[in-house]
Amino acid sequence: MENLIEERIKNKLTTFYGGRLGSWKVREFNTIIGKPIKTVDRIEMISPNQQNRKIDSDWTFKGISSNLRYATKKEKTMLDKTPPIIGKYENSFAAFIPMSKSKEWWLLTQDERRKIFEEKSKHIKISSNYLETIQRKLFHSRDIGEEFDFLAWFEFEPENKSVFDDLVGYLRQTEEWKYVTREIDIRVNRD
Amino acid sequence: MENLIEERIKNKLTTFYGGRLGSWKVREFNTIIGKPIKTVDRIEMISPNQQNRKIDSDWTFKGISSNLRYATKKEKTMLDKTPPIIGKYENSFAAFIPMSKSKEWWLLTQDERRKIFEEKSKHIKISSNYLETIQRKLFHSRDIGEEFDFLAWFEFEPENKSVFDDLVGYLRQTEEWKYVTREIDIRVNRD
Repeated sequence: MENLIEERIKNKLTTFYGGRLGSWKVREFNTIIGKPIKTVDRIEMISPNQQNRKIDSDWTFKGISSNLRYATKKEKTMLDKTPPIIGKYENSFAAFIPMSKSKEWWLLTQDERRKIFEEKSKHIKISSNYLETIQRKLFHSRDIGEEFDFLAWFEFEPENKSVFDDLVGYLRQTEEWKYVTREIDIRVNRD
Repeated sequence: MENLIEERIKNKLTTFYGGRLGSWKVREFNTIIGKPIKTVDRIEMISPNQQNRKIDSDWTFKGISSNLRYATKKEKTMLDKTPPIIGKYENSFAAFIPMSKSKEWWLLTQDERRKIFEEKSKHIKISSNYLETIQRKLFHSRDIGEEFDFLAWFEFEPENKSVFDDLVGYLRQTEEWKYVTREIDIRVNRD
């Protein structure tokens, strides 16, 4: 009586397909750090409960929605005031950023990671300035044995491209990012 | 090009089989809270990298080793002084305790969970008194879509059975355990 993880996890799994097919057209494809992945023309994001839909692709990355790892109650209350809205028609630009952190990061304890993440890098504090303009969703991949630790997805209006560049520019110079060993930045737009 | 989670996760997956086969013979089988599982005669624990070995069974539960979630640097330093040793011949008694916590628990933020887990319930502080006698290993199952959130495995010498009873007795009356919605306590011994 085998219970295949693949089946059991369907209702929380999001899959990103990269290849010739997909509703998001690739505009820029950059390896920020670490081993690159194959450059593709298009990306498709398949949400939980639609996992029976498979797409012919060059690569497939999977991630799950999980519980919050760093935000405090106070921060969550603040964040919840502007919940992300994914799939809004006006947000025709998006970014798919798969990334991994070092072994060293994962061996840190929770208090050490939190200190770097927020007290030193102000990840939540600074990001929260972008809640209105940049819609985001984080998928966890490390615990399901994926190639990347996280898959980050952002959506925004074309006119906010430079605002998004500001945000990733800020994050990439933080103490936290010193632990990032692999990061691919794929910018797409909806056809 | 499909990458099956089942395959990718093999090197961090531990599988528990319950049925007529297995090297651990069931001595006691108790549902502490929540829906029971089928009572079985024997249990087998299959470690990472041996996942090709399948066992005919009545049930199968899987879990992964993941990063620490609550211990601080100071606590980890203390815990690391007495690392758990699983598989010691003298530890012929064991307990397999699959458990789940409530939706409410998982919606709490990290600081709220930590406060309940340690500041109120002293999970690490009290458990650390048992490091010498009770060998333990925790497997995470929630993020891989399993029926239980965690699978806890303990090994000890037969003479320390009551010491182990003290430990679980303590934990079950803590604030943390108010969030436990399901817990099965299966005591076994090696043949």
